[in-house]
This record gives sequence, C-alpha cells and structure tokens, in this order.
Amino acid sequence: MYEQSDAKRLWNRRVRTLVPYVPGEQPREPNLVKLNTNENPYPPAPGVQEAIRRFPIDRLRLYPDPASADLRRSLAEYYGVSHEQIFVGNGSDEILAFAFQAFFNPLSADSAPVDPSECIVFPDITYSFYPVYARMYDIPYREVPLDDRFRIQLQLMELPSAGIVLANPNAPTGIPVDLEALRRLAASDRNRLLLVDEAYIDFGGQSAVDLLPEFDNILIVQTLSKSRSLAGLRVGFAIGAPALIDALERVRDSFNSYTLDRLAQVAAEAAFASSAWFEKTRAQIIATREQTRAELAELGFLVLPSVANFLFVHHPARSGSELYQALRDRSILVRHFNRPRISDFLRVTIGTDQEMARLLTALRAILTPPMETE
Amino acid sequence: MYEQSDAKRLWNRRVRTLVPYVPGEQPREPNLVKLNTNENPYPPAPGVQEAIRRFPIDRLRLYPDPASADLRRSLAEYYGVSHEQIFVGNGSDEILAFAFQAFFNPLSADSAPVDPSECIVFPDITYSFYPVYARMYDIPYREVPLDDRFRIQLQLMELPSAGIVLANPNAPTGIPVDLEALRRLAASDRNRLLLVDEAYIDFGGQSAVDLLPEFDNILIVQTLSKSRSLAGLRVGFAIGAPALIDALERVRDSFNSYTLDRLAQVAAEAAFASSAWFEKTRAQIIATREQTRAELAELGFLVLPSVANFLFVHHPARSGSELYQALRDRSILVRHFNRPRISDFLRVTIGTDQEMARLLTALRAILTPPMETE
Repeated sequence: MYEQSDAKRLWNRRVRTLVPYVPGEQPREPNLVKLNTNENPYPPAPGVQEAIRRFPIDRLRLYPDPASADLRRSLAEYYGVSHEQIFVGNGSDEILAFAFQAFFNPLSADSAPVDPSECIVFPDITYSFYPVYARMYDIPYREVPLDDRFRIQLQLMELPSAGIVLANPNAPTGIPVDLEALRRLAASDRNRLLLVDEAYIDFGGQSAVDLLPEFDNILIVQTLSKSRSLAGLRVGFAIGAPALIDALERVRDSFNSYTLDRLAQVAAEAAFASSAWFEKTRAQIIATREQTRAELAELGFLVLPSVANFLFVHHPARSGSELYQALRDRSILVRHFNRPRISDFLRVTIGTDQEMARLLTALRAILTPPMETE
Repeated sequence: MYEQSDAKRLWNRRVRTLVPYVPGEQPREPNLVKLNTNENPYPPAPGVQEAIRRFPIDRLRLYPDPASADLRRSLAEYYGVSHEQIFVGNGSDEILAFAFQAFFNPLSADSAPVDPSECIVFPDITYSFYPVYARMYDIPYREVPLDDRFRIQLQLMELPSAGIVLANPNAPTGIPVDLEALRRLAASDRNRLLLVDEAYIDFGGQSAVDLLPEFDNILIVQTLSKSRSLAGLRVGFAIGAPALIDALERVRDSFNSYTLDRLAQVAAEAAFASSAWFEKTRAQIIATREQTRAELAELGFLVLPSVANFLFVHHPARSGSELYQALRDRSILVRHFNRPRISDFLRVTIGTDQEMARLLTALRAILTPPMETE
C-alpha cells in the first residue's frame, strides 16, 4: 500500500529544499582501520566505565535534571568559570544548531536583497555543517575563502557582518588561529557574536576561554567526542557570558526540555574527573600525529600544519579519490571530500601507532610503481 | 566583569520573544512522593540493566550508528511495520519538534492576516509544548476548545486546517479518542497531516498504528519515558509512512547527525525485548489507577475518565492551588497548571500502591475539617 502512496505531498516547503549534512560513514565491517570521523583511538577514562557500572539503573525511570547542574558545576570548575557560563547539550552539533537559532537573525520578511553586512561569515572550507544550519534556519551567510595555503583570512573575517563562525583549529585543515587573532576578531565588533567551535582544541590549539573575561561576545563550543573519547555518548558544551548561556537555554526549552540523559550526565562528569588519562592519551595522539606527519612528508605528501587529531594531506602524483579508493580496497577508511579546492586531499584521523603503521605500509604499496615483469 | 555586561544585546529577534516550555519540577529532596511528571513508579525491565552492564564501554569512543538500525528493526518487528516506517529520537519531544519543522509551514513571507484554514489546530487544553513549538517555528495555530466535559470536539478538529495535532489520550485530562474518531479525522483531509502523540497510549488507549495501512497521513509519536520506565534515558520514536520518516530524517540531519547515544540505543532495544515486565507493570499501574479513582471519588473528587498513568481531578470544596500547596507541605508533589479552565484541577501521576495510600491519607487529613477545640 505504501508503494502507491506519496506521502511526500505532506512535506512542507522547508523539507522540500533541505540539503542535509552528510556525516562520515559508520561501517560495521570488522578489521577496518577506521580513520574517517576523527574518533579517539583510545577508550574513555577508566572513571567513565566505573560511573556507568555504578549507576543505579532504577533511577532511569525518572527524568534527568534538565539543568544538568552537577555536570555544569564540574565543567565550570575545570575551566575556571561560573556554572552560569556553561551550557551542555546532546553533542556539540546540537549546541551549534541552538546557537544559530539564538544569535543569528533569519532573513527579514520582505526578503529584499541582503546586504553583505547582514550575512554571517565563515570560511569557505570549514566544518560543512555550518552552511547546513544557515540554510535550515534561513540565515544569510557569506563564505570567506581560505588563502592559497588554506589559512583563514582574518582581515576578511573582520569586515562588517552579522556574526562570525570559526572552527579553531579549522576543519578539515587542522590549522589553528592564535589568541591574538581571536582577540582582534572579537574586538572588531563587540555587538557581533564570535562563535568559536573548539571541537579539536585539546590537541594543540589555544582555547578562547582565556579571552572570556575580556569579551562577552565570544561563545565557545566544545565536545567530548574527540579528546574525551566519548563520541558514542553524545555530549558537548558551550562556555560564554551568562546571557549567552541563557539564550541557548531558551532555545532548548522551546525544543526539548531534557536533552542529556542520566547516563551521559554522570559519564561526562567522570570523564572530566580523570585528568591523568586525558593528558596521557592526548599526548600520545599528538606524538603519533607528529611521527605520522614526518613519515607522510617522506612519502612525498603535502601535509597541512594541523594541530588537531587528524592530518589533511595531498599527494602531487595521485588524485584524492584514487588514493581514497586504493586505501579503501586495503580496508583503510579515510575521509575524502569531493568539493572544490580540496578534492585532491584526504583527511586522515590519527589512530594508534599500529593503525598509522598499517596506513603507511598501505600508502607505500600504493605509491610504489609495481616492478615491470620481463 | 559579567555583572556589567549585557550580552543580551546579542540575542536575535526570536530569542527575545520566546516563551519556553516549563517542565514539571525535578526536585532532589529525599522522601518526596513524586507524582508530578508522570514517571513510572517501577524500574525499567531487568533486560535494560543487563544491556547496560554488558555494554563494552570502550565502544563509546566511536560514534553511534546515526540510523539506529538495530533499534529501528526491533521496534518495527514489535509494531508489525517496516523499519522504514520507524524514526527514533532523543525523547518524543525532540521528534515532535522535528515534525513541526517538517510538516507545518511557517508564516508566509508577507505576513498577511492568516486564514483559519492555514493554521494548524490542537485542543486548547493539551500538552502545553504544542503552542511552544508553533511559536518557535512561526507556525500559525488555532486552539480548539474542549467541550464542557473536557472532551476533544472532533467535529471542530475536522474543519479545514493546515494540520492536526492530537494527544491520545489527551494530557492532562487522560481522556482518549477511539479509533473510529481518528479514522474520520484522518479521512477528512488526506492532504493534511494528523500527528498523534501517543505518549500515554500503553495505559489503556487504542493506538493509531492499526490505521497506518489505510492512511499515509498519520504520524504517530511514542516515548519510552512512561510505560517503559525510561524517562531518564531520553528515547522516543515515530511510526508512519516511509516518506514521513524520510522527512524527519532530513530535518534531523540538518540539525544533529547523531541524536541517540550508544547506551540509549541498546537499552531501548532491551526494553522492547522484555514484554513480560512491560505487561506486568502496566497492568499494575492500571489497577492502581482504578483503585485510586474509586477512592478519590469517595473523597468527593471529580475524576476525569483517564486511561493514562495519571488522573486529572478537581475537588468542589478546594481550589487547585490550595490543594497543591497542602500536599506539597506533606512532601507530596503533584502537578498544578495555573491556566484558564483547569486551575482548580490537579494532575496526579499513578505511583505505587504505597504512594497512592500516602496521597489518600494526606488528602483525607486536608479535607477533614479539624475538630473544634472547646
């Protein structure tokens, strides 16, 4: 019966024109070296396991604390801010979506041609969810091109606009901007929000948290999916002035009162209590990254100066799609973006030393021309 | 420094005018009899505990399956539909919010006076999140008054409109509509979505699932928060024609790719595998409800004919706020809505027999005038 039905007639105008975000593959095949979605190769802190094992399952019958007070207090203490400066959500993507809904104005009703200064701005090459949010919430935007070395052109980002969205370090390049640049950007218009997406900050960047006492127009978004090894748990958080946090709460409470479940709340708290594990695993990932960078350079790759848990690389002799497929054939999955300017790059997540050794062995085999027979 | 700041200047037009939903209190005080948010008094099925204990915590480092394929297959099998007819989300509130964004059109750009037929409709007394969603997403709506016995006026709901939202049984009344009425409503305009919120269906209502083979314009939303004792886990689901599920997925993927965490996925699946526990606990809640209904009637209460896990009650001699406070003073928390027509009612969640006995003892003490001394 459904074969004949076309329930698409019930879609509203928005759904008909949406172009949703496409996340990296989550394949189930065993023995795959999965280097495509920037997950942490190490398990979460032992305290996380303990917190989940100890959690009284009977309590799941009750709603969670909608304010996530305990978790917010832990995060506030960790970052040296007040709990009123912390917002938590169901992954940092949810928080970014709330921020777009809270701080950026949709197209005005008359839909007159939009002045460039009424657009929000973000780089042309960055986390590809930003333009999806902008279209989803009817927010006019301009993409500011990266320079020819894939760096953010900060002087262009400073020009009059309705808001700035910046991943630091940027994705998929991994290139950071420093605190001084962020300070200039925030100071260039204090009536404009600077939304800083610090998903990868723990692997070597400088967090804008240090700028918060000076600027109430900076909102920082972070995640537990990368440096805390909890991609499967869905927890992110934001740090900023209390009125910015208040705005995020108002949007959330017009959407879903309870976005974080009880297990996620206690596990996230435990992750932040285990600083030794955090320091050890991120140091290991950084060391593996630097080792991998050197070996890739030796193989002739151009490797952008990433401070994230991934490297964005290009080989002058091979196309991105060719390399992607050759690795895939050897059960190694990396990320390839079939988009202008970067279609000949691969984004390679930093895994364990063993995983990177497998990657490098595979690349050597792919790049070495087979000996001619006869 | 933040004391002086007014970061509210950075709020957009929408946030300035939002009136968020206010969920019931989640107080921490021990020994409280908590009958205010319709939680299940019994723990989740034993299989849930086992699924969480058995879950390999190391896997939390990896993103969840964004499609929640395993959970959707289990739900599809349980309800006798295809997995393409199932959507899962971070609580049914999230799914309702997605449905409002997917199927109902926001005000057109010119904001001309809206014709009543361009509004969506829902009862004037119902789940108070519906008008919040409508305002959040700029969807014009009309509230159709319940009749003087608090029943939904189906003939008014049938009139031309842009969509119908119906809680069945309705909240906070608990009064159901039967399948025949739903069939007429769905048939009255097959180009209009009938969104049926079945949060409380398992306690005695008739699910619209049986109508799905006839109607591709019905979308059913359910939750694991009530009959499955998992309010603290945040899982809801929708059932409907594949193209309706597709629309929900498109909205989700423009917002947050991974809304359900790995623990929620396995625990939800386990909850549906334990049908004996489900049947036993819901039968107990229904029995306790009927017992409580009789005793409240004996105390002089008007008790609406609820088939949910709560009763909506009014005492002719006492105001709602007075009774609410008198119970609160005795550490019993119920829900009072300070709104027109229902401000003299209390919504009382069905707890254990012991909890209901404590409630009834307290009510007897409150309602019996103290003996005059001298």
